[in-house]
Amino acid sequence: MTASALERLQAAFSPETLRNTGHRLIDLLASHLDKVQKSEGRVLNWAEPTENVQRAADWLHSSGSEPLAERFEQLVREMLARGHNLHDPRYIGHQVPAPVPLAGLFDAVGSVTNQVMAVYEMGPWATAVERSLVNELGGIIGWPAGQFAGLITHGGSLANLTGLLTARNVTLSGVWERGLTGADRPPVLVVQADAHYSLARAAGVLGLGTGQVVKAALNARRQMDPQKLDDLLARLRHDQCSIVAVAACSCATPIGAFDPLDEIASVCRRYEVWLHVDAAHGGAACLSRKYRRLMYGVEQADSLVWDAHKMMFVPALCAFVFYRNGQHRFEAFQQNAPYLFDPSAPGLADYDTGLLTPECTKRAAAYGLWGVWSLFGRELFEDMLDRTFDLGRTLYERLVEASDFEPLHEPECNIVTFRHIPEALRQAPPQILDQFQLDLRRTLIRSGEFYIVQTNLDGRQALRVTIINPLTTAAHLDDLLNAIRSVGRKILNESVTSRPQ
Amino acid sequence: MTASALERLQAAFSPETLRNTGHRLIDLLASHLDKVQKSEGRVLNWAEPTENVQRAADWLHSSGSEPLAERFEQLVREMLARGHNLHDPRYIGHQVPAPVPLAGLFDAVGSVTNQVMAVYEMGPWATAVERSLVNELGGIIGWPAGQFAGLITHGGSLANLTGLLTARNVTLSGVWERGLTGADRPPVLVVQADAHYSLARAAGVLGLGTGQVVKAALNARRQMDPQKLDDLLARLRHDQCSIVAVAACSCATPIGAFDPLDEIASVCRRYEVWLHVDAAHGGAACLSRKYRRLMYGVEQADSLVWDAHKMMFVPALCAFVFYRNGQHRFEAFQQNAPYLFDPSAPGLADYDTGLLTPECTKRAAAYGLWGVWSLFGRELFEDMLDRTFDLGRTLYERLVEASDFEPLHEPECNIVTFRHIPEALRQAPPQILDQFQLDLRRTLIRSGEFYIVQTNLDGRQALRVTIINPLTTAAHLDDLLNAIRSVGRKILNESVTSRPQ
Repeated sequence: MTASALERLQAAFSPETLRNTGHRLIDLLASHLDKVQKSEGRVLNWAEPTENVQRAADWLHSSGSEPLAERFEQLVREMLARGHNLHDPRYIGHQVPAPVPLAGLFDAVGSVTNQVMAVYEMGPWATAVERSLVNELGGIIGWPAGQFAGLITHGGSLANLTGLLTARNVTLSGVWERGLTGADRPPVLVVQADAHYSLARAAGVLGLGTGQVVKAALNARRQMDPQKLDDLLARLRHDQCSIVAVAACSCATPIGAFDPLDEIASVCRRYEVWLHVDAAHGGAACLSRKYRRLMYGVEQADSLVWDAHKMMFVPALCAFVFYRNGQHRFEAFQQNAPYLFDPSAPGLADYDTGLLTPECTKRAAAYGLWGVWSLFGRELFEDMLDRTFDLGRTLYERLVEASDFEPLHEPECNIVTFRHIPEALRQAPPQILDQFQLDLRRTLIRSGEFYIVQTNLDGRQALRVTIINPLTTAAHLDDLLNAIRSVGRKILNESVTSRPQ
Repeated sequence: MTASALERLQAAFSPETLRNTGHRLIDLLASHLDKVQKSEGRVLNWAEPTENVQRAADWLHSSGSEPLAERFEQLVREMLARGHNLHDPRYIGHQVPAPVPLAGLFDAVGSVTNQVMAVYEMGPWATAVERSLVNELGGIIGWPAGQFAGLITHGGSLANLTGLLTARNVTLSGVWERGLTGADRPPVLVVQADAHYSLARAAGVLGLGTGQVVKAALNARRQMDPQKLDDLLARLRHDQCSIVAVAACSCATPIGAFDPLDEIASVCRRYEVWLHVDAAHGGAACLSRKYRRLMYGVEQADSLVWDAHKMMFVPALCAFVFYRNGQHRFEAFQQNAPYLFDPSAPGLADYDTGLLTPECTKRAAAYGLWGVWSLFGRELFEDMLDRTFDLGRTLYERLVEASDFEPLHEPECNIVTFRHIPEALRQAPPQILDQFQLDLRRTLIRSGEFYIVQTNLDGRQALRVTIINPLTTAAHLDDLLNAIRSVGRKILNESVTSRPQ
C-alpha cells in the first residue's frame, strides 16, 4: 500500500476525523432544523431530476483540494439545500412524518458502528431493542405475553409481503417447497378495495397473480363492508376457491378509512380465513386513549403491519409485522446457512432475526424508536398522534365552511382529501376540474410554499393531505387554503391570457 | 394539549435539543471508536439474549428524572457498551464490514431530516444520489451509458429477490398477473450449489418452490463448472422445463469462490437463459485493478447484485440491483397508486424509485456511499478491497506454515475457511473434531478476544473468517491463530479434567 493510500485510509477511519466532521454536522443540522421549522426557506427544494443527478455525479468526479472537514461541510450543505424539508410545518403531504430529530441521532449510533442483525451475535443489542419493542407493542395491541411474535422490516410494503407470505404458506400447505404450479385451482387474495398497492403487488410477487386479487366491497365511508365480505367469502367457498387471506386496512390510504376490524374478524373466523390487517398508518392509534376505538378488534388479526416510521414519528424505515399466534413466526421463510446459524447453540435461533425477515443482514432499524421512547416516554407518541389526528378534523371543518372547497369525506384521522372549486369553475366540465386540481398541486409544491399530494377518488382527481408534522397548527391549515386559492387564481389568469385570440 | 405535553413535544423537536445531544453523541462516538480501534475492550460484548431484552425493556419503562441530555448520554453509552465492535481489528467475522465511520454521519443527514424515496418529489436529492451511483457503478461494470438500469434496496437478500422476480416475470410471460398456477409444468431455478440461502429462498417466496431449485455442480475449487452447467441446461431443455434463471456467484459464501462468469455467460447465451449474478460480496472487485480479473465477463449478466455495505465498507444497508438491459427495470413490479404517481408529469416516473424496488417508502440508503466517495474519491474503495483481499492470502500462507491448522481451500479473496487440529486431536474421530471447531469458536467469541464465524463444508465443521476491516493487519492474524490455540488448549484441558474418574 502506498504512503498516500495509507494516509487516505487512516483519515477515513480516524476517530479525530469523526469528531471534527461530526461536530460540524451537528451544527449544520441544528441550524437547518431551526430555519426549516421557522419556514424560512422552501418546503420542497424542487429541481429537475436531470439537474440533480448531474450535480450528484459532479461531486463524485471532483476531487477538492480543500481540507477534509471543509469538503465534508460542503457536501452536507448540498444535501440539505437540495432535499425536502419535512420539518417545515407547511409540509402536509405523504404518509411520511416530520420525525423526532433525535431519532436520527440514535439511528446514527447503529450506522456509525454498523450494528446489524440476522444472527443474534452480530447485533445483540440491536436484537434486544427490537424484541423489547415487539413485546411492548404486542402487549398494547392486546395480546398476552409469550403468545404472539413480531419482527421489524424495511417498510410497510415488505411488511405486507411478509405477512401475506406467511398467510400463503400456512393456508396452502407445502407451497413453500412445491411452489404454486401444483395447485389445482388458483387461490385468491381478498383485499379492501382501497388497499395500498403493496397488497396486490404481494400477490404478484408471491406467485398468486395480481389477477387473483378480489376486492372486498366498501360502504359509503369507504370502509370494508362486513356483510358484503360475508357474501363474498360464501361465494368463494361455494366455488371451492382457496382464500389466502382477507386484507383489511387501518386505515386505507385514499381517505384514511378504518375498517371495522371487530366485525370483519368475526366474518373471517366464520369462514376460517386468515385476517391480515395493514395498520401501517393507523396502528399507532392503539397508543391513544382518544383514538384507540378506531382499532377496535385489532387483537383478532392473524397478521398485522404497523409502521413506526409513520404515526410514531421516527425516520424511515421501521415497520413491524406481528403474528397473533407466535407459532407462525417461522412459516414465512425456511433456510439453511451453516455459516450463519450455530448448530451448537440452537436456543439462540429464536433471537436470530434472519429466520423471520426478508432481509438477511438487517440494520438496527429500531434504535430511533427505542431511543425516543426511552427518552421521552410513551406519552409523546400519544400526544403526536392526537394532535395530528385532531387537526384532520379541524381542516375538515374549515373546508366545510369555505364555499370554494369541497371535502370528499369526513375524516377519521389526519388524512383529508378535498377539491378546490373556485367560483369561476363551478360549471366547468369534470375534465377541466380534474386538470385544475393537478395543476394546483404541481404549481403549489414547486413554488416551495406548501407540500401536499394528490389522489384519484372514483375517477375524480383530488387534493390530499396528511397532517404528519406535530408542529403544524390550525393557522398553517388556513394558510394552506389561502395559498391554494392564490395559486388557483394565478392558473386561471394564465389560462385566460394564454387563450388563443 | 396539556402544558406538559406541549413542553415535551417542543423539547422533542427543538433544534437546541438536537444541538446539545448531538455534540454529546459525537464525542461519545469518537471516544468509542478510538478505544475500539485500539482493542481496549472486547470485540463482541456478549450477553444472553434474555438479559439484553430485559434491559432494553427496562429503559422503555423507566422515566429518568435526570436532564434530557444526561439521559440521552446514558442511553447512547448503553447502546455502545452492549453492541458489537466491528471497528476492532480483531473483528474478522461475517461479511459485514467495519465501515468508514463518516458514512454513518452522511447517513444521519438522511435520518434526521427523513429524506425518503418512492416518488422523486419526496427525496429529490436522495433519488439523484442513488441514480448517480447507479450510473457510476454500471459504467464500471462495463455497460454503455443509457442502456442499463439499476436501483438500491435493503440488502443482498432483497436484491436477489428483486433480480430473480424480474427474471421470473420476463421468462414466464404473464405470470405477474396470472400467477403460477396456470403453468403447465413447474419451472426451475438453477443456482450455484454453494449459493447464498437467499437464492433458494427467493424460489420459495416467488411461488416457484424451493423444491424447484436445481443446483449447478461445482469444480474442485467450488466454482460453478461451465461444462456441467451446459449438460444440465441441455437436459432441462430436453425435458422442456422452463428455466427462470441461472444464478452464479461472485463469490459464493462458504469459501469465497468466484464463478467463471465469462464461460457461464456463454453457456447461458447458448440456451437463451437469464444469467443472474450474485456479486453481493465480490462486485467491488470491479473497482480494483488487481482483482478485477475475478469479475471477468460480469458485463454479460442479465441481472446483478452488488452490496455496497459489504466490500465498499459502508454501513448496512445499501444493495444495488442492475439490469444489463435497462428495459427490464419495470418488469419486477407493476402498480397503480394514484396518490403517489402524478399522471400530469409522466416523465418523472423514471425517477420514481417505488416503481422499481420492493420498498414503497425507501430511506436514502446511498447517502453514506455517495458521501464517502465524494469525500475520499474512488481510490479509497480500491485500497480497502486490495488490502483485505491481500490479507486473505496472507492468512492462508500462515495456515499452510502452521502444522496445527488446516486451510480448506486456497482463497480467492478475503474469505478463508480452515480448521484447527492440535497435536492431541490428530487421530480424533470426525465428530470430535467437528465439535471442537464449534466449541473453539463459541468460546473465543464469547471471551471477546476475537470475532470469527463457522461454516459446514461437505459435512465438516470449520472455522471461517472474512477480513473485512481495513485496520486489521497480518499481526492480528498471527494473534488470531495464537488465540485459537490457547482456547483450544483450554477446551482440551477442561475436557480432560471433567472426564469421569
